[in-house]
Amino acid sequence: MTESRQVVAFLSDYGLTDEFAGVCKAVMLSIAPELRIVDLTHEIPAHDVRAGSLTLVRAAQYFPEGAIVLAVVDPGVGTDRRLLAIEVEHGVLLGPDNGLLAPAVAILGGAREVVSLTNDDYHLPAPGPTFAGRDILAPAAGYLASGVPVADLGEVVDAAGLVPGLVSLPREENGVIEGEVWWIDRFGNCQLNVDPEELQAHGGEPGGSIEVRYHDQVRAARWVQTYADAKPSELVIVVDSYGLTALALDRASAAAECKLRPGSPVTLVPPGAAKPEDE
Amino acid sequence: MTESRQVVAFLSDYGLTDEFAGVCKAVMLSIAPELRIVDLTHEIPAHDVRAGSLTLVRAAQYFPEGAIVLAVVDPGVGTDRRLLAIEVEHGVLLGPDNGLLAPAVAILGGAREVVSLTNDDYHLPAPGPTFAGRDILAPAAGYLASGVPVADLGEVVDAAGLVPGLVSLPREENGVIEGEVWWIDRFGNCQLNVDPEELQAHGGEPGGSIEVRYHDQVRAARWVQTYADAKPSELVIVVDSYGLTALALDRASAAAECKLRPGSPVTLVPPGAAKPEDE
Amino acid sequence: MTESRQVVAFLSDYGLTDEFAGVCKAVMLSIAPELRIVDLTHEIPAHDVRAGSLTLVRAAQYFPEGAIVLAVVDPGVGTDRRLLAIEVEHGVLLGPDNGLLAPAVAILGGAREVVSLTNDDYHLPAPGPTFAGRDILAPAAGYLASGVPVADLGEVVDAAGLVPGLVSLPREENGVIEGEVWWIDRFGNCQLNVDPEELQAHGGEPGGSIEVRYHDQVRAARWVQTYADAKPSELVIVVDSYGLTALALDRASAAAECKLRPGSPVTLVPPGAAKPEDE
Repeated sequence: MTESRQVVAFLSDYGLTDEFAGVCKAVMLSIAPELRIVDLTHEIPAHDVRAGSLTLVRAAQYFPEGAIVLAVVDPGVGTDRRLLAIEVEHGVLLGPDNGLLAPAVAILGGAREVVSLTNDDYHLPAPGPTFAGRDILAPAAGYLASGVPVADLGEVVDAAGLVPGLVSLPREENGVIEGEVWWIDRFGNCQLNVDPEELQAHGGEPGGSIEVRYHDQVRAARWVQTYADAKPSELVIVVDSYGLTALALDRASAAAECKLRPGSPVTLVPPGAAKPEDE
Repeated sequence: MTESRQVVAFLSDYGLTDEFAGVCKAVMLSIAPELRIVDLTHEIPAHDVRAGSLTLVRAAQYFPEGAIVLAVVDPGVGTDRRLLAIEVEHGVLLGPDNGLLAPAVAILGGAREVVSLTNDDYHLPAPGPTFAGRDILAPAAGYLASGVPVADLGEVVDAAGLVPGLVSLPREENGVIEGEVWWIDRFGNCQLNVDPEELQAHGGEPGGSIEVRYHDQVRAARWVQTYADAKPSELVIVVDSYGLTALALDRASAAAECKLRPGSPVTLVPPGAAKPEDE
Repeated sequence: MTESRQVVAFLSDYGLTDEFAGVCKAVMLSIAPELRIVDLTHEIPAHDVRAGSLTLVRAAQYFPEGAIVLAVVDPGVGTDRRLLAIEVEHGVLLGPDNGLLAPAVAILGGAREVVSLTNDDYHLPAPGPTFAGRDILAPAAGYLASGVPVADLGEVVDAAGLVPGLVSLPREENGVIEGEVWWIDRFGNCQLNVDPEELQAHGGEPGGSIEVRYHDQVRAARWVQTYADAKPSELVIVVDSYGLTALALDRASAAAECKLRPGSPVTLVPPGAAKPEDE
């Protein structure tokens, strides 16, 4: 099992301008020269734990089996929040105990063992206060890749005591689905936290129309198979490549057009719903 | 031959904020753990096939022999445009059939075999509609690196039927060369689609002056050996490190100064040309 | 020793939009397929040798032993500035002779041997004028990784004749420390060129207050252990994870709040100093 831990998937809010991510990678390779490191993204908005956890969720099923996931979005740096290694069936996730890892852990089958990274034999000595990514988490990734067992990295903690994830699920009442924007991608597509099966359970169907409410707008959106099916400037609903409902325009930004942001509330009213009154 | 296919040069318009490129890399490493992946750039402007193809042209001669080139700039996602593997003398290019690969294929000696990636044994199952980079192209790169022959990835198609490249060549009449800006680099240098030999064929020479017309401007530009030869704020012509003609300022942006963008028309009038009338 | 030269730490001002860094990496892997390349950052501001050299200083102690450091911030491209390989105790640094490497070389124990990269057997033939990173420095990294000795890359030059570093040190008079901002990180923390021991030598102490002067402002900043100890919008002094003095706000940008930039002068007046008159 240990032998397959040769890939690290690395996510952070470090950005690519400072050398933070690069130094963490140098630290990992100093310890485990054979390691392969995949940068998922380092452009998570600063301190945005929610955005980081949703990115991990989207990416989780594509990690190589046995991969180490290193995730650093850590507004609590310098506080006493714990740093964790969470072993799942086919890998280990490393990051702060602030909910960042929780949704991905659930998708990956749940925590088998959780260790707080308290064993400073596996920390890097810091010239000043600890820089968690560089001094604790990156070394942990390197040592795991070198064959150090998870349990050696610190003390076992109770998985039930971890900070839970922040990812919000939609509410449904009489077929009206109150969701929110989980993610806006580079192309301006707005992924909602809505499973298309929920729409279908209330009379929505591909080819038909769904009422979309956001801010003070009420619009009809056609449910199409693919972005290219949208007419110019037509707001459409698509099932995106993650299997979730998304608002989109063909070759234009639905987010810009609708002034939506991550976390914006969006209500979907499929044909079979008891329509709420327009306020 | 197959053994050398251990480097992937990866270009896309995915940007570095979303995890798209990272997930594609995770997919490749899941299939071919020994693979080395070089990110050429992921900051091709969204859907800008022309910019992507010019970047591949500039980079092509520097790919390791036998490299796999993975290129994704795909405004036709969700349409029935084909996804291709194009085998050239020393490598394989993977990408959509929209002209993106064509100029690089020509530079690399032309297509030996073209396959449409229709064999879904080598696709990733998608939770929603297909995400071409993640579900078809990245797996193809991984399987090629693992020794799967190009021909196994789908059905052979006729190279003559591919969508041609979009790269425009200059027009020359009486020594007047009507070109355009192919590329503006980070430093604001404007690479033109003009071979310096064309300038020399009409009396241009290093050290001399060339008339440059763009927008409604007519300026003289000195042909210098290197950026550092330019006087402060002097517009100069240099042969750039790709062997093409470029407009430049020393330590300043010629693009900003001249308000030029990729695709902007620029006319060069070397001394031996029959000068067009000023309009 | 040569065998350990399998990691390159790569820093430049190429940015990530153009393919410059990617092509340099392709060149390195063409020569040394086993090489591992760590991107420190390619977002050094264009031509900002000082920012590049400070980044190398911060990162230097984290490079794997024996690593090759490839650094390209080269406003003198096309002039006759030399390109160097500088061997240090545990590695080799490659870059232009413009002061970029000097501070990192000092931190890494000083130059053992310096070679000007004049041996064009180890250059790449360029289609136009030389692109130093692609045609000389990246090949040098590749050949060093392949076992070519430093001395083969060109002629030995005198370390005493190198362009010195540009990194400025603080001035102290009667306990008043006139420093400057060395670095502003993604989070807006302002690292100063001030060793906290200097503050302590003049009566400063953790928990106490230090007078901070910048632009025409005079403010008191509390010296706290960590960012999280700051009250909302309270300007604080922390010893950062590099062991240097930094100005910070909790979860906000001290740089934006105080309108500080890299190089901005900042004066610190610890309690034991002879206070200068307010102007």
